[in-house]
Amino acid sequence: MKLKVRVLDLEADHPIVVLNKEDARKIGVYSGARVEMRFGDEHVVAVVDETEKVVPPGEIGLFENILRKFSSVPKELEVLPSPDPKSVLYIRKKLDGRRLSPDEIHEIIMDVVEERLTSAEAAAFISASYIYGLNLDETVALTNAIVDSGEQIRIDKHPVIDKHCIGGVPNNRTTMLYVPILASLGFYVPKTSSRAITSPAGTADTMEVLAPVDLTAEEIKEITETVGGVMAWGGGTRIAAADDKLIAIRRPLALDPRGMLLASIMAKKKAVSSEYVLIDIPVGEGAKLPTVRAGEDLAKDFITLGERLGMHVKVVITDGSAPIGRGVGPVLEARDVLLILEGKGPSDLREKGTELVAHMLSFVKDMDYETAKKLAERQIDSGAALKKMREIIEAQGGDPEVKPEDLKPAKYSETIYAERDGVVTRIDNKAVATIARMAGAPFEKGAGMYLHRVRGDRVKKGDPLYTVYSASKRLLKDALELGLKPYTIEPR
Amino acid sequence: MKLKVRVLDLEADHPIVVLNKEDARKIGVYSGARVEMRFGDEHVVAVVDETEKVVPPGEIGLFENILRKFSSVPKELEVLPSPDPKSVLYIRKKLDGRRLSPDEIHEIIMDVVEERLTSAEAAAFISASYIYGLNLDETVALTNAIVDSGEQIRIDKHPVIDKHCIGGVPNNRTTMLYVPILASLGFYVPKTSSRAITSPAGTADTMEVLAPVDLTAEEIKEITETVGGVMAWGGGTRIAAADDKLIAIRRPLALDPRGMLLASIMAKKKAVSSEYVLIDIPVGEGAKLPTVRAGEDLAKDFITLGERLGMHVKVVITDGSAPIGRGVGPVLEARDVLLILEGKGPSDLREKGTELVAHMLSFVKDMDYETAKKLAERQIDSGAALKKMREIIEAQGGDPEVKPEDLKPAKYSETIYAERDGVVTRIDNKAVATIARMAGAPFEKGAGMYLHRVRGDRVKKGDPLYTVYSASKRLLKDALELGLKPYTIEPR
Repeated sequence: MKLKVRVLDLEADHPIVVLNKEDARKIGVYSGARVEMRFGDEHVVAVVDETEKVVPPGEIGLFENILRKFSSVPKELEVLPSPDPKSVLYIRKKLDGRRLSPDEIHEIIMDVVEERLTSAEAAAFISASYIYGLNLDETVALTNAIVDSGEQIRIDKHPVIDKHCIGGVPNNRTTMLYVPILASLGFYVPKTSSRAITSPAGTADTMEVLAPVDLTAEEIKEITETVGGVMAWGGGTRIAAADDKLIAIRRPLALDPRGMLLASIMAKKKAVSSEYVLIDIPVGEGAKLPTVRAGEDLAKDFITLGERLGMHVKVVITDGSAPIGRGVGPVLEARDVLLILEGKGPSDLREKGTELVAHMLSFVKDMDYETAKKLAERQIDSGAALKKMREIIEAQGGDPEVKPEDLKPAKYSETIYAERDGVVTRIDNKAVATIARMAGAPFEKGAGMYLHRVRGDRVKKGDPLYTVYSASKRLLKDALELGLKPYTIEPR
Repeated sequence: MKLKVRVLDLEADHPIVVLNKEDARKIGVYSGARVEMRFGDEHVVAVVDETEKVVPPGEIGLFENILRKFSSVPKELEVLPSPDPKSVLYIRKKLDGRRLSPDEIHEIIMDVVEERLTSAEAAAFISASYIYGLNLDETVALTNAIVDSGEQIRIDKHPVIDKHCIGGVPNNRTTMLYVPILASLGFYVPKTSSRAITSPAGTADTMEVLAPVDLTAEEIKEITETVGGVMAWGGGTRIAAADDKLIAIRRPLALDPRGMLLASIMAKKKAVSSEYVLIDIPVGEGAKLPTVRAGEDLAKDFITLGERLGMHVKVVITDGSAPIGRGVGPVLEARDVLLILEGKGPSDLREKGTELVAHMLSFVKDMDYETAKKLAERQIDSGAALKKMREIIEAQGGDPEVKPEDLKPAKYSETIYAERDGVVTRIDNKAVATIARMAGAPFEKGAGMYLHRVRGDRVKKGDPLYTVYSASKRLLKDALELGLKPYTIEPR
């Protein structure tokens, strides 16, 4: 059927075309079905959205993203039903409980990344993967497919190491210690991190206080090979491109099929040619996993998958039941990191950072843990780690002379004091995150919190517990009026 | 966060709002998450679609369907994250393999019909229902929820009877015999039917040749109560409103969870207060179910569900391996029906129509089948059924004086002849449907095919097999050039 093109001045994420209901019926399609549009020798496939109003009969509504697929703007298109992509059959196969071959998984992932599948179709794939699970072969295939879906970085120096924390704990900015310390010891660390989604800061948000993090794959390669380490924002590259699309569908349903979670993380490591990967799994109340046992179970899967992918994986299960470090929010966290590298700063974060380094050193260099831990400490105390951090900051385009005192929190603040004597027995991760976000973190870099007391500290009535910072009086008030009490103080 | 309203001159099926990526991050949401928009005392919830281009930071893009939810057009809105509807939790519960309560299913279905769930969320529900199945309690609850989701028609006369064919066989226009015959015998038949989606004609398309079928619920009630029968287009009402939405998501994946299929059909019967329902399940090569056994299995489920819903259900398994009747396409099928009611027309369709009537009569009136069959024949032979058909046509607003010879097929035609002597051993349902659709059916009412020979007929080389009709020379040519051979002729 020939239809006149109506340009709709909008951008859609998906290849959607708008057809009048009447024409859709005539062509024999309906919302969610696919049509092929022919314009000379060019063929473009898109998914139909039926309308009764926007587009009159005889016309087809095209968004900008579809128009760009044609070499010039067509006036008229021949529109006919198009068969579903083969990946729809493979999704059906999974829905019927059958295992998928690597080729089938590859096809599904390519169709996800090229937006050839609708979100309903992708959701069906994710649901079936969740219910039946993905076995090891499928998880390996999924990881490889996600790697193939995006850019890959080949690092020509060795050993290339990486690290990943499954998250859930505020501050906990160990990456920014781990990377400079290990780079100062001759390792190559092409670290990509995410921005915060529901937390007060992601590593990318915090590193951005010190230097630009929106780097290309080329820049990541070059900085890693010359300086030894980089801390870039993963979302700025097209590394593991399919992953973002899968996450966008998993998120609303909080649907994390184990195999998909593993593949998502490991694909990002494989795509930057990591040889050794340290996985940090914080467990405890308020963390993503409640118990050590749950952590160990996940650890086993990471190690098995790593073996199949030709990567050496070590997993460390850490205490995730309270914040780590004092600052919460990009500027305050970056300040903690610089302070630690200067030999000062919060001891819990320094401790956790050097422990992770020691685990990696003992893993790669076959060094005993105690020696490795001392080596990590020495790199801080000698100033070698700080020097490396400054090189990394400079290579990424930041000011290498930055000092902790340059990093100023937002101008409005209010401090909360202890209402009784006692011991801090608990600091609630979620309450800390919620207050810091309400105050403006991570978008307002200087917003957040400073924790004057950590878990286990004794306090007297009237001692400062924490200070909330915000660039806006109103947001500061909103954050305080949430009525959350992150600190639990019990009599000794 | 306060955002300026940008009106997007488009209509969406879903409650989507467009946010700049930057603002989405600031609010702490992402594509697929929900936001609440506050305008004075008014609160509207919608799903976020992130953009980098269409809407600049500081603005929120609203489609017409969202704008209408406000009492006036807002200039600025307070936008904040909104929790997911509770039904998302129930969908998760189903994904975890747990059974849902009637209230939980009701909530999901209401959120589907009110568009509070995204298509990805609805697809997850359908996928989980497909994989784990819906047990009888869940299916009953789903049926009731679908009934509640739309209009209901109470018929105050008795007995109210209905009929459903699970489809898949071209022509097979038994409803148009069944309704007038049973209405002429004092039954009340509020029949709603669908239009064709992938077939050359639905009952609604064919009935529309004789009278308008786009009736309101009120009209369906009134015509049923006064004339005894009606043949309306179900899509023109809001009966079982949720069903259309569920089907739109199931269709692309061809995902028909058994319980959902049953609920979809039975909800439409319950919503028009049917007391007795006859289900026709055609089986055989080219039909929807391949074997009698598969048909019997489905039949059992219909009967059990009917019992729980307080409806009497009888199932008839019929031969669906070839077209039934001679005409294919709205006009040609309507002509067959009128001819049969005049005592002429194709015997196979007359036979199947009267058989179905006999099954219903013997079921409701406790009459033996042979007597019931004779009664059905008598209603045709006496002209009572034709008289009733004319009353129905008139009540729906058509011309009661219509004659078969008034129903003229489209003006271009070509006849295909037998290439050899033999017996017609097979007529391929799918080939017939494809040729008739390509010729223009059901949108061009006069387009379609006429089958000169039926299965079992002896033919000589040169005998006419079928004629294709089209309103367009080009479509006629296209239909013939498909190269399909619907007839199989074998030597005796």
